Amino acid sequence: MAERMVVIGGDAAGMSAAAQARRMRPEEDLEIVALERGRRTSYSACGIPYWIGGRVDGPARLVARSPEEHRRRGIDVRTGTEAVEIDLERQRVRTRDADDGTERWTGYDHLVVATGASPLRPDLPGMDAGGVHGVQTLEDGEAVVRDLESHPARRAVVVGAGYIGVEMAEALVGRGLQVTVLERAEQPMSTLDPDMGVLVRDAMKGMGIDVVTGAAAREVLVDGAGRARAVVTDDAEYPADVVVLGLGVRPNTGLAKAAGLPLGASGGLLTDLAQRVRGHGDVWAGGDCVEVLNLVSGSEQHVALGTHANKHGRVIGTNIGGGYATFPGVVGTAVSKVCDLEIARTGLTEAQARSAGLQFVTVVTESTSRAGYYPGAQPMTVKAIAERFTGRLLGLQIVGREGAGKRVDIAAVALTARMTVEQTTALDLGYAPPFSPVWDPVLVAARKAASAVAADVRATARA
Amino acid sequence: MAERMVVIGGDAAGMSAAAQARRMRPEEDLEIVALERGRRTSYSACGIPYWIGGRVDGPARLVARSPEEHRRRGIDVRTGTEAVEIDLERQRVRTRDADDGTERWTGYDHLVVATGASPLRPDLPGMDAGGVHGVQTLEDGEAVVRDLESHPARRAVVVGAGYIGVEMAEALVGRGLQVTVLERAEQPMSTLDPDMGVLVRDAMKGMGIDVVTGAAAREVLVDGAGRARAVVTDDAEYPADVVVLGLGVRPNTGLAKAAGLPLGASGGLLTDLAQRVRGHGDVWAGGDCVEVLNLVSGSEQHVALGTHANKHGRVIGTNIGGGYATFPGVVGTAVSKVCDLEIARTGLTEAQARSAGLQFVTVVTESTSRAGYYPGAQPMTVKAIAERFTGRLLGLQIVGREGAGKRVDIAAVALTARMTVEQTTALDLGYAPPFSPVWDPVLVAARKAASAVAADVRATARA
Repeated sequence: MAERMVVIGGDAAGMSAAAQARRMRPEEDLEIVALERGRRTSYSACGIPYWIGGRVDGPARLVARSPEEHRRRGIDVRTGTEAVEIDLERQRVRTRDADDGTERWTGYDHLVVATGASPLRPDLPGMDAGGVHGVQTLEDGEAVVRDLESHPARRAVVVGAGYIGVEMAEALVGRGLQVTVLERAEQPMSTLDPDMGVLVRDAMKGMGIDVVTGAAAREVLVDGAGRARAVVTDDAEYPADVVVLGLGVRPNTGLAKAAGLPLGASGGLLTDLAQRVRGHGDVWAGGDCVEVLNLVSGSEQHVALGTHANKHGRVIGTNIGGGYATFPGVVGTAVSKVCDLEIARTGLTEAQARSAGLQFVTVVTESTSRAGYYPGAQPMTVKAIAERFTGRLLGLQIVGREGAGKRVDIAAVALTARMTVEQTTALDLGYAPPFSPVWDPVLVAARKAASAVAADVRATARA
Repeated sequence: MAERMVVIGGDAAGMSAAAQARRMRPEEDLEIVALERGRRTSYSACGIPYWIGGRVDGPARLVARSPEEHRRRGIDVRTGTEAVEIDLERQRVRTRDADDGTERWTGYDHLVVATGASPLRPDLPGMDAGGVHGVQTLEDGEAVVRDLESHPARRAVVVGAGYIGVEMAEALVGRGLQVTVLERAEQPMSTLDPDMGVLVRDAMKGMGIDVVTGAAAREVLVDGAGRARAVVTDDAEYPADVVVLGLGVRPNTGLAKAAGLPLGASGGLLTDLAQRVRGHGDVWAGGDCVEVLNLVSGSEQHVALGTHANKHGRVIGTNIGGGYATFPGVVGTAVSKVCDLEIARTGLTEAQARSAGLQFVTVVTESTSRAGYYPGAQPMTVKAIAERFTGRLLGLQIVGREGAGKRVDIAAVALTARMTVEQTTALDLGYAPPFSPVWDPVLVAARKAASAVAADVRATARA
């Protein structure tokens, strides 16, 4: 008799798992049921800011594969179907139909929990007013677009200057709005060190975006029609026709928690390297609802990124499909942009390295994206963090213009291979004047970091 | 008493060595003499095609540091001074003054041989005619620019479709010439496999460049004024107002050979990992005149690239300076472009892998530079080569448009770390829609290669 694989959540991780398992096992051997409470599957949440900003068409363009396309490939996608309980003992999931509320149980041999994450909505007065939006789902994106089209907006306040916040600032500037970004921390992009974050702030200000740091939102003021009209901080009131939340996300693990599945410190599910939920042979999890091992810090962390979700899905699907695959962990790579400013990081920041018990030296270098004499050469700043004594690369951060961001991949691979900064200086990277100076900016940073490591060794020896 | 470091060749490797040694040891401790037969130092030969094409100003912009600037830093640069003999036993170099022919001996404690490479000029009739140019030195570049300005040219023939050849094709197209490229091999860019080279040929044809493959130049026809008027192959005659040689280079090691220094199979000097000439404690060598270890094939090869030359120079200068550094080898990375076509490779081609005694599987994948829905997403083709059974990545080739070329760095680092293609699929690379699809094109290729390795294992087990 065929086994049944039940997937909770029809987005990147869940549907990648389903598609991969389907490729490996025919329908007569494995029945695949995917439960999705919304109406769409396999969409790019990461594309939403560009849709809102008018750079890409939406929402259809953001859907990689519709429920119907999945069905044609032999996956029983049930949209409008919310999983409301997992019964681990009897290997079954209780679902509720979004339209008529009907409940039913569906048994499984393999359960895949891929319930994603939800935007953080601080519990502040006025947070539920009209014109206040998260940007996590296509429905969120549609709500923002509809709102902007039906309520002519002049001023936008973005709460939070992380990736979503800065991408939404770009999107709203692209729609001609006057944008204020409120950030509680000292600098925007708290995934960077503050000395790199300040470069982002200055560049955003140069784009006409008002970036207010050290500013925690305390309240949304609401007008007579129930719409947001301003965001209040301890110090000031920022008028807003529309408010966008860019405060990050938290894993959707209420269902998993209620079932007794193990959660980590960030609230994400804990899995083994094959993406099996720890201690549960028949339950798998991946995507934004799990924690991942950071290979540099040695600790689990929560990283909501479509690229990890897709990899998790492939690993889960391969394993359920009868093959073997693992997800070894992440090194903390992320890349983003605000207009023409490119921002990237990998490994650990200073604060993260300190939390991990590591001691380190840091360097900041200036270089250019192409040979200095080649047209379009753009300045870029690279910060490198290296472990004391061993010289192992611990992290790299880049702020620059065209050609800056994806250079972080060089360091991401070097981190995975646990290279030292001295080893990194010798890397054989692509060189030609239109592509790079003769010393790639990443190598310049590694070289300077290697010198700093050596200087620290000498200073320690003298002390 | 101060030691004396004598550098033969005032370009990337030699002057990097001099500058690095100077940083580490003061003048009273180390005298540094650099012998350069030309008039310039430390220039970017790689920039010459862009200068000829009018994309960058030359020649001054291509000089990173002039003789005078080096002198101000305490390096005794002697231009117009050609080294004509190395006397290893008495540790001295005989030089000849370019102006008056005066010869003299200069003693050394440390000798750095950095004599570079020269363009291959096949011994064919007419090769010395006016209008036939190599493009290796700034003098070559000046000669081409002067020639094009003084002899209005309509048709150019480029002999050889390697990196220099295709870059010169772009340059001459940029100057409005009608360009024919003659290539002896089956496809242009013989540093790629032919199935990737054909993509380059097709793209070049799409740019209006006439690419003739399987066409070896046999003769340059000369007009009454002693100028080239056509290039003859076995099959046809190609009219030419100007002829550019893009046949690659060979190491300038006549001087070293005469002195009895060890040369490898490609004619380059053989060094140890610290860039000391093998068996000679006081002679160092780097740049285009040496052979380098290819870490993937395990053999020495000759690779003339400014990026290696600069690294060699730093290593030599550090070691002479009293520090310690090594150059571990290369993985064979190169990147180039023809107009908007980006071409990159790293590791081994199929032919190179076969020569190294390796068995392998190959895959070719199509992907895009950005998320498919993001504006400016460009198609790119990635070929991956992986070792049978072990799955170790052996090589990667990319042909695409904007955003394609520098992705080769991901594979360059993975090759250095001897990663398998399965390990490569799990790399944590920068992802956001403007920068990459959710599976980076390099990961797509690695994933498909991992499947091919597994399929080969299964097929072998069944056989």
